[in-house]
Amino acid sequence: MSQPVDSAVSAVRTFIEQHRAVFLDDLAEWLRIPSVSAQPDHAPDVRRSADWLAAKLKETGFPTTEVWPTPGAPAVYAEWPSADPGAPTVLVYGHHDVQPAAREDGWDTDPFEPVVRGNRLYARGAADDKGQVFFHTLGVRAHLAATGRTTPAVHLKLLIEGEEESGSPHFRDLVEQHADRLTADAVIVSDTGMWSEDTPTVCTGMRGLAECEIRLFGPDQDIHSGSFGGAVPNPATAAARLVAALHDEQARVAVPGFYDGVVDLTDRERELFAALPFDEDRWLRTARSHGTLGEAGYSTLERVWARPTAEVNGIGGGYQGPGSKTIVPSSATVKLSFRLVAGQDPEHVANAVRAWVPGHLPDGIRHEISFSPATRPCLTPLDHPALQSVVRAMGRAFGKPVLFTREGGSGPAADLQDVLGAPVLFLGISVPSDGWHAPNEKVELDLLLKGVETSAHLWGDLAEHWRHAP
Amino acid sequence: MSQPVDSAVSAVRTFIEQHRAVFLDDLAEWLRIPSVSAQPDHAPDVRRSADWLAAKLKETGFPTTEVWPTPGAPAVYAEWPSADPGAPTVLVYGHHDVQPAAREDGWDTDPFEPVVRGNRLYARGAADDKGQVFFHTLGVRAHLAATGRTTPAVHLKLLIEGEEESGSPHFRDLVEQHADRLTADAVIVSDTGMWSEDTPTVCTGMRGLAECEIRLFGPDQDIHSGSFGGAVPNPATAAARLVAALHDEQARVAVPGFYDGVVDLTDRERELFAALPFDEDRWLRTARSHGTLGEAGYSTLERVWARPTAEVNGIGGGYQGPGSKTIVPSSATVKLSFRLVAGQDPEHVANAVRAWVPGHLPDGIRHEISFSPATRPCLTPLDHPALQSVVRAMGRAFGKPVLFTREGGSGPAADLQDVLGAPVLFLGISVPSDGWHAPNEKVELDLLLKGVETSAHLWGDLAEHWRHAP
Ligand SMILES: [Zn+2]
Ligand SMILES: [Zn+2]
Repeated sequence: MSQPVDSAVSAVRTFIEQHRAVFLDDLAEWLRIPSVSAQPDHAPDVRRSADWLAAKLKETGFPTTEVWPTPGAPAVYAEWPSADPGAPTVLVYGHHDVQPAAREDGWDTDPFEPVVRGNRLYARGAADDKGQVFFHTLGVRAHLAATGRTTPAVHLKLLIEGEEESGSPHFRDLVEQHADRLTADAVIVSDTGMWSEDTPTVCTGMRGLAECEIRLFGPDQDIHSGSFGGAVPNPATAAARLVAALHDEQARVAVPGFYDGVVDLTDRERELFAALPFDEDRWLRTARSHGTLGEAGYSTLERVWARPTAEVNGIGGGYQGPGSKTIVPSSATVKLSFRLVAGQDPEHVANAVRAWVPGHLPDGIRHEISFSPATRPCLTPLDHPALQSVVRAMGRAFGKPVLFTREGGSGPAADLQDVLGAPVLFLGISVPSDGWHAPNEKVELDLLLKGVETSAHLWGDLAEHWRHAP
Repeated sequence: MSQPVDSAVSAVRTFIEQHRAVFLDDLAEWLRIPSVSAQPDHAPDVRRSADWLAAKLKETGFPTTEVWPTPGAPAVYAEWPSADPGAPTVLVYGHHDVQPAAREDGWDTDPFEPVVRGNRLYARGAADDKGQVFFHTLGVRAHLAATGRTTPAVHLKLLIEGEEESGSPHFRDLVEQHADRLTADAVIVSDTGMWSEDTPTVCTGMRGLAECEIRLFGPDQDIHSGSFGGAVPNPATAAARLVAALHDEQARVAVPGFYDGVVDLTDRERELFAALPFDEDRWLRTARSHGTLGEAGYSTLERVWARPTAEVNGIGGGYQGPGSKTIVPSSATVKLSFRLVAGQDPEHVANAVRAWVPGHLPDGIRHEISFSPATRPCLTPLDHPALQSVVRAMGRAFGKPVLFTREGGSGPAADLQDVLGAPVLFLGISVPSDGWHAPNEKVELDLLLKGVETSAHLWGDLAEHWRHAP
């Protein structure tokens, strides 16, 4: 079911074709700045990247462009109000910092010297996330050119952070500090991907994340297992029994209250997930796993996208060196992470875990439990009008039906949802083979330009079909 | 019920009183040699200690004294045949190496400069094990003097190894190599202790030990818990579930076949254990534990002395550093030790564990399991005539009824039992406060001399009441 190419589509394509070469040259210039936020010696590069982007956005036409400092790396903020005061406000989120990369990690060419081979542009950040931020610059210009407007159909805001690859340590503070500037009716995150080159998809949500460390204490020091073993509680055994109790035999999380509020998958969502050309063997190869295991009654995609989990990220106690040591260890530690889905409250989950732990420990084992700051889940229902706009815009660009995915991970976008109270939508054109965080990261040039097209169609569609809340 | 002091007891005491000063001077001389087998720079001291002991045994009267080399530290062997060719043969086991010790570990005085304070002799090795080896030298002389003999009533052999504190890595080979010289009707181990100063006891057995490491493998590398968590098996979770399955709700070991052949405690043994003045709170303080937990239906002493166990000595998998890391780990490892009691065969236990593991792992988790060389349990029944001799000899020395203990740990004595096919008996006068392996190790002088007395009474009693196997 491919859609007919209408005149608006043609106009956008023509504009893009005319500006494609400069657009790619500009992107290459940006990619040459090694804005690695995790490496302190690249801090000047991250600042340079922010300045470069702010200047480019100004050149693009954004009347307001600012570099916002943080205690770490700066973010870039830009605004382009619509002439229509009643237009909805949209905030685009992305990041201008990149993962570390070095030729010797296995790159075929210098990671910070972009090179086009075939239909691909290779460079660190090509897909994650400079390419996907940058397509909006040509997108908004194509939108204006194709519609004959001088301002966008929506009030357009961009917030491009500089510490995403370092865990966004100052992002929440930044958003709270500038909340009045950032108000929006919807957030568009361009830092995800789609199913594959042949299957355009829109991501509808991300899981949240609650992490904790549970420390168990037995004897005041390691004690001799010959003298005392078999008669005192062993914290390593207690840790194991606690972890074993975390899931029932259906691999459901067995903590009472954990599933409270969970928004179940709708039949329609399950149908649409099932329509994706999913190859489990291939998925397992990507996962580098040798089997599947998860909550009974759900498919693999449903398990990673739409179901909450409890995962052991680390466990340790007692002697772990070579050979053996006949001790009852003094302590053991378990690091757990809980992926959360829409409807789950991280605080409620943390309380449920805190309440559950003591009942699973024997007398004589003391415990401490600490939760790190949580990330909330986000989910936009399939029938949300702004989501429908993204789907239509993408459909026009790709000339194909658009399916739906979700993201199993968790991201700072949830902070935008929390602080701004706006729904989060995802517009990404990266594909799994792009190699995020890996050597030879690349972006498919065809898809990059489809991103430009989607961006060009989106603002008008949103303004037409969706008025912001009064 | 204190026994009347008979003339033999008086004669022994008189002899000991006459020779006590020289005996203690000699012991102090030996204690000044820092024969720390675990520290390579003390290797010459360990050799010096062996030479010193061999010379002293020669001086004591042993017609044969030899220093037996090993690939590590040497052992000392001595023989004193009885004039009665039909006398039983007894092999005394002990060790002349000591634990490391340094003033700065918390010693009040130099650990290798013996000092008497009150009724205690402080030095590294005072109790473990030089003092307890050395009491046999004065013991056999007192035996001869009090009975007017020129040779012992039994064929007496001594094997004093030099690597016990390093795990006796060459002991089994040594015993096998010299098995024809070491043949004995009974082995007397003087490297244990008794219940307390007020409660003389004889140890009747030691637990055995089978150790294994189980390695579990999931994904080929750590993978992202956001992308894959909840849909693939996690080896840390698998390790925890495996460990949790190791015990049932009664804290019994749940591996089928584990208890095969276990020699149960007799009613008499349980009665005698229960007669010991056991203070559980005090025991817990010694264990530095904050609760008891063990196999249902058994007391704490029964659990540590007479019941087999499965203990987690170490568990590890995934991220264990500070903070968190959202991974499904690639692997996890569990180190287990099984304490074994009489009747259990280590090979049978290892096979039972090997057979049990796979059924407790999910698909997609591969495993490896490796067992280290095992130590067999040993146990001498209460009615064994040689054990009765030890009890009588100790009773005469202490003038008190003798109760029974066992040793929860495992030791190289089991190799003597295995290779020589002889029952193992224990004659030790150390008390828990002696501080084995700790700073300020000491021996109670009164008890040390009771050890001499017991040794003096034992050989005649054995020869009188127990003829060796034909
Ligand atoms: Zn990114
Ligand atoms: Zn010892």
